[in-house]
Amino acid sequence: MIKIAVMGYGTIGSGVVQVIETNQDSICRKIGEGIEVKYILDLRDFEGDPIQSRVVHDYEIIAKDPEIAIVVESMGGVEPAYTFVKAMLEAGKSVTTSNKALVAAHGADLIAAAKEKNVNFMFEASVGGGIPIIRALNSCLTADRIEEISGIVNGTTNYILSKMADEGCGFEEVLKEAQEKGFAEKDPTADVEGHDAGRKIAILTSLIAGRQVDFEDVYTEGISSITATDILYAKQMDRVIKLLATSRQTGDTYTVMVAPFLLPKEHPLYTVNGVFNAVFVRGNMLGDAMFYGSGAGSLPTASAVVADVVELAKHIGKHIELEWRPEKLEISDYKKQTTRFFVRTSADSAQIERIFGSVRYIQVPEVSDETGFVTSEMTEEEFEKKAAELGAVLQMIRFH
Amino acid sequence: MIKIAVMGYGTIGSGVVQVIETNQDSICRKIGEGIEVKYILDLRDFEGDPIQSRVVHDYEIIAKDPEIAIVVESMGGVEPAYTFVKAMLEAGKSVTTSNKALVAAHGADLIAAAKEKNVNFMFEASVGGGIPIIRALNSCLTADRIEEISGIVNGTTNYILSKMADEGCGFEEVLKEAQEKGFAEKDPTADVEGHDAGRKIAILTSLIAGRQVDFEDVYTEGISSITATDILYAKQMDRVIKLLATSRQTGDTYTVMVAPFLLPKEHPLYTVNGVFNAVFVRGNMLGDAMFYGSGAGSLPTASAVVADVVELAKHIGKHIELEWRPEKLEISDYKKQTTRFFVRTSADSAQIERIFGSVRYIQVPEVSDETGFVTSEMTEEEFEKKAAELGAVLQMIRFH
Repeated sequence: MIKIAVMGYGTIGSGVVQVIETNQDSICRKIGEGIEVKYILDLRDFEGDPIQSRVVHDYEIIAKDPEIAIVVESMGGVEPAYTFVKAMLEAGKSVTTSNKALVAAHGADLIAAAKEKNVNFMFEASVGGGIPIIRALNSCLTADRIEEISGIVNGTTNYILSKMADEGCGFEEVLKEAQEKGFAEKDPTADVEGHDAGRKIAILTSLIAGRQVDFEDVYTEGISSITATDILYAKQMDRVIKLLATSRQTGDTYTVMVAPFLLPKEHPLYTVNGVFNAVFVRGNMLGDAMFYGSGAGSLPTASAVVADVVELAKHIGKHIELEWRPEKLEISDYKKQTTRFFVRTSADSAQIERIFGSVRYIQVPEVSDETGFVTSEMTEEEFEKKAAELGAVLQMIRFH
Repeated sequence: MIKIAVMGYGTIGSGVVQVIETNQDSICRKIGEGIEVKYILDLRDFEGDPIQSRVVHDYEIIAKDPEIAIVVESMGGVEPAYTFVKAMLEAGKSVTTSNKALVAAHGADLIAAAKEKNVNFMFEASVGGGIPIIRALNSCLTADRIEEISGIVNGTTNYILSKMADEGCGFEEVLKEAQEKGFAEKDPTADVEGHDAGRKIAILTSLIAGRQVDFEDVYTEGISSITATDILYAKQMDRVIKLLATSRQTGDTYTVMVAPFLLPKEHPLYTVNGVFNAVFVRGNMLGDAMFYGSGAGSLPTASAVVADVVELAKHIGKHIELEWRPEKLEISDYKKQTTRFFVRTSADSAQIERIFGSVRYIQVPEVSDETGFVTSEMTEEEFEKKAAELGAVLQMIRFH
């Protein structure tokens, strides 16, 4: 019997206990022995709850117990999670976490700490919830140089954009409904402004580049400026607007950004709707691949955490090499990246063509007091200069 | 430097050498040391080819060389591949294969042989080419009981069906074109009649059930009877026709079959077109997930083989547990499975309703001399009985 501890008994921690109890038999067959949750670390007592007898309030009880081989961290936030996780690794226990803030800030450091003690640090559930994208990058797509990784990795914004597209309503209206249904936080800033997605693409890029990408360096735009009018234009172009967290190989490094993009019908991410997440990967040998699933929710996320527990159990006594060195990767300036831009403006076609040259105009029957057009391919820098010269820009959304 | 051998220098074997040479640096960083292809086993000499000096004709040279840690099998077919692979495992070498016929016939046996010698037997490329579905099942979705796995796992038939849907042409016409373009074999039977997909779903089901599923037991229907008229009806219903290899949990076992199905727009497999493959998985905790990518082709398949090589290199000296016991799984009789059936018939509505009760009629403007309808949910058995009573059935395609 492998004994484990769960730190943080919230949505994910309680899901982990539920997954282990529900699927005890099949999990046991896969490992060759059973799993027992010996401790649950939480500030609360959970009086009257069946788990009450296993609750502890001091993480050192877990760190000092030689019976504990594997620890699940599902508290969230950087501290005290970092202190606790580091202590567990230093005590020779393998750790899995669902905490993207912790992994984005200290991933390289915790991997090194695990290596030192011949244990493992895993974090499948920190990106894409139940979608096994981390293990795919670490142990499946290892023969490839990854040229691009682009994901819909935030369920809240994808729910809002899908709903806006389906019903033609505006951002504020859908956000309010999402909050009522529990699909958006009371303070939705981290999701809506792309910060959550920024942390996730920083983690994914660190893994494919093998070096530390700081999420603070990732250029981020959110979806709060997207309007029902933008949706009309997108439909006219047979495209959808998706918040993408994207990383493209640029020489020896990557260009990393989070922003709304206009995706064509042929793109595998085009049909990813509602709270689903998906990650598109292009390898130099593999070509295009995509991983799709539930990006959040108690049980899907807990399923990924428990899959890590199974993997950790199968690798007791063996550190699995993982290339994510602490040296910082200088990411490429996104302003040098080229793309095509969709623009809505109150300027007239003479002005547009004087500045942008030949463009493709997009006409939407419902909209008459403005002009929509798509530029030719140019850098962000060039675009900014031209847009400033044009003045009256009502909206800009990038093509993908 | 890790020394490996490649058995069979055809499309995939030569791709493996190319992937290793092209991505030597990044692969080396992931393993911590380089990979060298020391031997290539083939019947041919490849005179004048840069690989000529490494070609051997006797597999025992490889088996007896203690420097060789990992062997790639890409010869295809059951024999002599089985004899060679078994000899390599018994000589203490880890093996990866892209050979679905070998894995479907002897997977459990070869896993047991690998365990005995504390080495590993991997076969990522045997199903879904470059899509990492095997590792997903073995090391990512391990916290779940898998309730369903349904895949588009044959590129030839998906190319044909996609082309028929796009252009409204008939099966024979598209097959001929696919053969000319090299997307279909001269003798396309194994693909077109679903036997290739049958082997693949037998492998996937063996992995999720942990026991041997014989592909001979898998009920298989191909796509050669699908017509341009069927495509018209599918469009009318907002569905697409896809050849699915599907396995559904039924009590303690699975119902496994390969057949054309009508998929609704909301299904993640709906948009998988051309030579792309994808596998949909439903877990009891995870919910829905999907894995999408290139199902065939030299480099995508070789990418999966080399990812196995990287994984084998990281696990030298450590057998990774894999639950696929040799005991045979008695799969459930597909005739007991319930579904809805789309039917085209020359019978009239009075006859249809007398036998099938209330049905949903599908009308296509271009078709006038027959009637299309969708039954209520019923077992295959019930359907067969009713269809026999109705007589004049021109076509039947299942809903999914």
